[in-house]
Amino acid sequence: MAYRPPLRDYGFLFREVLKLDDYAMVPSIADAPVDLVEQVIEAAGEFAAGVLAPLNGVGDKNGCKLDGDKVTTPPGFKEAYKQLVEGGWPALSVDPQWGGQGLPYVVSVAFMEMSSSANMAFSMYPGLTRGALAALEFGGSDELKNLYLPKMATGEWAGTMNLTEPHCGTDLGMLRTKAVPQPDGTYKISGQKIWISGGEQDFTDNILHLVLARIEGAPAGVKGISLFAVPKFLPNPDGSLGARNTVSCVGLEEKMGIHGNSTCVIQHEDSTGWLIGAENSGLKIMFVMMNEARLGVAVQGLSQAEAANQAAADFARDRLQGRSLTGPKNPEGPADPIVVHPDVRRMLMNSRALIEGGRAFMLWTALHADLAHGHPDETVRTKAGDYMGLLTPVLKAYLTDKGFATANDALQVHGGSGFTEHFPASQYVRDSRITMIYEGTNGIQALDLVGRKLAANGGRAVMSFFAEIDGFVGGEGRDPALKPFVDGLAGAKASLQEATLWLMQNGMANPDNAGAASTDYLHLFGLTSLAYVWALQAEAAQAKVAAGDNDPFYANKLITGRYFLERMLPDAASHLAKLKAGSALMMELPAEAF
Amino acid sequence: MAYRPPLRDYGFLFREVLKLDDYAMVPSIADAPVDLVEQVIEAAGEFAAGVLAPLNGVGDKNGCKLDGDKVTTPPGFKEAYKQLVEGGWPALSVDPQWGGQGLPYVVSVAFMEMSSSANMAFSMYPGLTRGALAALEFGGSDELKNLYLPKMATGEWAGTMNLTEPHCGTDLGMLRTKAVPQPDGTYKISGQKIWISGGEQDFTDNILHLVLARIEGAPAGVKGISLFAVPKFLPNPDGSLGARNTVSCVGLEEKMGIHGNSTCVIQHEDSTGWLIGAENSGLKIMFVMMNEARLGVAVQGLSQAEAANQAAADFARDRLQGRSLTGPKNPEGPADPIVVHPDVRRMLMNSRALIEGGRAFMLWTALHADLAHGHPDETVRTKAGDYMGLLTPVLKAYLTDKGFATANDALQVHGGSGFTEHFPASQYVRDSRITMIYEGTNGIQALDLVGRKLAANGGRAVMSFFAEIDGFVGGEGRDPALKPFVDGLAGAKASLQEATLWLMQNGMANPDNAGAASTDYLHLFGLTSLAYVWALQAEAAQAKVAAGDNDPFYANKLITGRYFLERMLPDAASHLAKLKAGSALMMELPAEAF
Repeated sequence: MAYRPPLRDYGFLFREVLKLDDYAMVPSIADAPVDLVEQVIEAAGEFAAGVLAPLNGVGDKNGCKLDGDKVTTPPGFKEAYKQLVEGGWPALSVDPQWGGQGLPYVVSVAFMEMSSSANMAFSMYPGLTRGALAALEFGGSDELKNLYLPKMATGEWAGTMNLTEPHCGTDLGMLRTKAVPQPDGTYKISGQKIWISGGEQDFTDNILHLVLARIEGAPAGVKGISLFAVPKFLPNPDGSLGARNTVSCVGLEEKMGIHGNSTCVIQHEDSTGWLIGAENSGLKIMFVMMNEARLGVAVQGLSQAEAANQAAADFARDRLQGRSLTGPKNPEGPADPIVVHPDVRRMLMNSRALIEGGRAFMLWTALHADLAHGHPDETVRTKAGDYMGLLTPVLKAYLTDKGFATANDALQVHGGSGFTEHFPASQYVRDSRITMIYEGTNGIQALDLVGRKLAANGGRAVMSFFAEIDGFVGGEGRDPALKPFVDGLAGAKASLQEATLWLMQNGMANPDNAGAASTDYLHLFGLTSLAYVWALQAEAAQAKVAAGDNDPFYANKLITGRYFLERMLPDAASHLAKLKAGSALMMELPAEAF
Repeated sequence: MAYRPPLRDYGFLFREVLKLDDYAMVPSIADAPVDLVEQVIEAAGEFAAGVLAPLNGVGDKNGCKLDGDKVTTPPGFKEAYKQLVEGGWPALSVDPQWGGQGLPYVVSVAFMEMSSSANMAFSMYPGLTRGALAALEFGGSDELKNLYLPKMATGEWAGTMNLTEPHCGTDLGMLRTKAVPQPDGTYKISGQKIWISGGEQDFTDNILHLVLARIEGAPAGVKGISLFAVPKFLPNPDGSLGARNTVSCVGLEEKMGIHGNSTCVIQHEDSTGWLIGAENSGLKIMFVMMNEARLGVAVQGLSQAEAANQAAADFARDRLQGRSLTGPKNPEGPADPIVVHPDVRRMLMNSRALIEGGRAFMLWTALHADLAHGHPDETVRTKAGDYMGLLTPVLKAYLTDKGFATANDALQVHGGSGFTEHFPASQYVRDSRITMIYEGTNGIQALDLVGRKLAANGGRAVMSFFAEIDGFVGGEGRDPALKPFVDGLAGAKASLQEATLWLMQNGMANPDNAGAASTDYLHLFGLTSLAYVWALQAEAAQAKVAAGDNDPFYANKLITGRYFLERMLPDAASHLAKLKAGSALMMELPAEAF
């Protein structure tokens, strides 16, 4: 069965959990009443399911081809991109100043999830453009912004990020690409960049590469890195295309997945670039793009879990094999559908609890992006901004680790069929695998969380988050049916608080303790966050049930939430125990012993 | 760096943990003193590393080709198979009666691990032959055995298992392939079988397919299934090849991994077959092959973890990126090797603790296969046979779930490089993925454990296993340094016993409770088994350390074992909590809600 956009879940989250209509003080939300948002989401779902999903397997099987420096994307991608642009989808939450529609970020996130579920490799092309646009909007001169942003907002031009070099990925301080100032104020950029997603393609007239490079004579390390705008074609001041720049794709990577996206080796040979922002402030601006991209990758993790789980559920309902342990459920048939088997259910329910919790967590955080950007109250903006900083690494690593695990469970539901390429399960596993790596590996996210985000502003963000949870837990007059959710949340939060204290006490004394604890801490943080948004969802669903609404959606939501509490939340204790083991045994073996 | 056979670990396990030389009462072990075993293992390691490993990537990239009904294996495979046969490797633990070397099963397991680490797709060809040989040896007539076994023992002829049909895999009761008795005592077999590993290849003169089929008029379901020997070429009584049989490969599967192994669609069109054993007793005989194969798959899981982890360790020592959190460890270089980072260590140490524990668990169980087969004391044989039955599903599912997870961690250590096909990491992930599925999915293993193996003979096997652990835990006069191992084992065993009681009380009342608990129960069983063999290894290593041996091998073994206790064993509590949640929430949603 084809991909089915989760419209009902979005409606529930927007109306009943996030209560978007309560935020009329935020201009972008005020301009987009929930009825309008739902119409946009529905149209986005149609585009994703109708245009992008049919090309997902095509992209995987055909991949991208390089001929000279020309990249040919898989059959149908070019036409789909044309439809993407015609539908105005790239501009969804771009500032109207640049021709965007200015819709709230939560709407953009829903669009990203659906288009990525339908076709992750395709959706990366506009995804990277969105990130480049955000960085240029943040750090670029008016001249650069006026020249590029309107065309990037529509998708007429694309954007990429050129960071990694063969000898340096995570450690950007080592990068060697150099920039030589020219008398006319431009720079000549030379060097090789690898793993450039969408670095070349056949659907836009121009591509703006945002390139990290070192200006001759700049300080060593990360303090000497600047960011440059390097277009494929040098635009004339009126926006028409001028000469071809000396930047080109000289190779395509063979990869485990996302075959439909071109992963390019990009060669800069005295290519012409314009400085973005001040000299040596490249990393700061690039991190605007990076944070945007990290949230996008979190959504990708969620999106692959959703798509894979839909395929698994379809298979589990159709495949007849064996009989229920409690007697035939399909007595007229030769066997029961495998959805009757508890261990198949275990995988489907784990997936569902992760997906519905993960989507709520993602959108709850996205709402804070809207609040951070447009709420009139500075206190609210500050707190929302704190949450964004704190939760970005959690969302990125937790949702991609779990997204991959969910895709992997979905493959397992398929049995042997899942290992063949006749079913989509293998592609979801292979495609989702990159999300744990790019835009900072999940280990880097965990370090960012324990090493930077926890300590920032004296721990203000995490204390706000704990206070918010305490406020919920201490809420009075609540429906007794919600008690398991409140208790589960309180327990998880206590574990997370204990872990946070342990980190404060032991991470200072020996930073390796913080590193050794980081991944378990991040997962404990993810579980606790899911416990919170599951409690919010349960409260909304229970209110409907208590009011006599017998839409099974609400009853199923409560069952899935309780499943989360009983079958997934127990991992919190295990993460706490592991992280408190410290770093000594982890670091004791000499490197040569491995 | 190339694959390095873990010879030191084998020596430790054979000499100091399993103490093979204590089993002189077992003829196969008496005939193979440890010195001889080590020579064999060393030569096996040379063959695996020198001949098979260089072809692993070749097989992945080239795959198998089908032209008409002829399969061409990847470049080099045919020559490697010739060397395999010339080296006498297929006959390692085959009964000398059939021309085998009669070495203990533990030796065969070590060979399987190394050859599969070096090249899993290649090693499946002789692996399937071994399984077919075992089934024929168990159930075949003397005529069939004399005709086929000597040639299968040398590898001159190959064997396959033909079970699955498009509409039935796990549920063999539905199979439709039919067998029509002929006046000469043979049968005409007709039907299509899928996913037949090594169903056709280009390196043996003949292939013996063991085929499950239904004799016309046989009872419905699993009670009406018979097993047939269906050779590709009908042999003359002297073993020379006669006419081509009407069995052929009509398709190859496109798969996520193991591209070097041909996964065939096999068409039987009135092909000539010989009944193996009695009519309608096919499943019983096939399960001899299946149990052998399940242990082989457990070894595959281990093998991919080992090979992937070697690649990850090499990468982590070589790749310079970032600085240690506690100050530069490679101050002259541009950055430190990533092995200094705790989160990279976490993955390498998890892998190591799993691999060294898993190898000990595998070989400890394999020793019991030798005892079950050849110990003079019936009590010992019975107990060893009980362990084999009980632990086969645990080994298969636990070592393949964890083998895949380890391969996946190894990819993560590689960062972006791991996602490209220029490094071997992706292949290990893709190849190992099938081990969780074939020879019975891991969910089926878990059901076999809770539904059959626990209850068999009134629970005799699990009670023996618990008594053995209690005996160890209660041991007196032990070195105090072993206390953490004894305590960890006692705690895990208490959890497993509590889970077993819960299953007895709740699985009877509602079989769905057993199904819902099965996978967590199996993982708890696997963890407890690893805690036991880690305690055995620690005892052996500590004895050396206490005696003043300063070979770092022993110190590292103890560190790795303690890491297992502190960083992996905490999952035991989480499995126990989850399984005790029961099946109610898991089964509550209607199928259409998924």
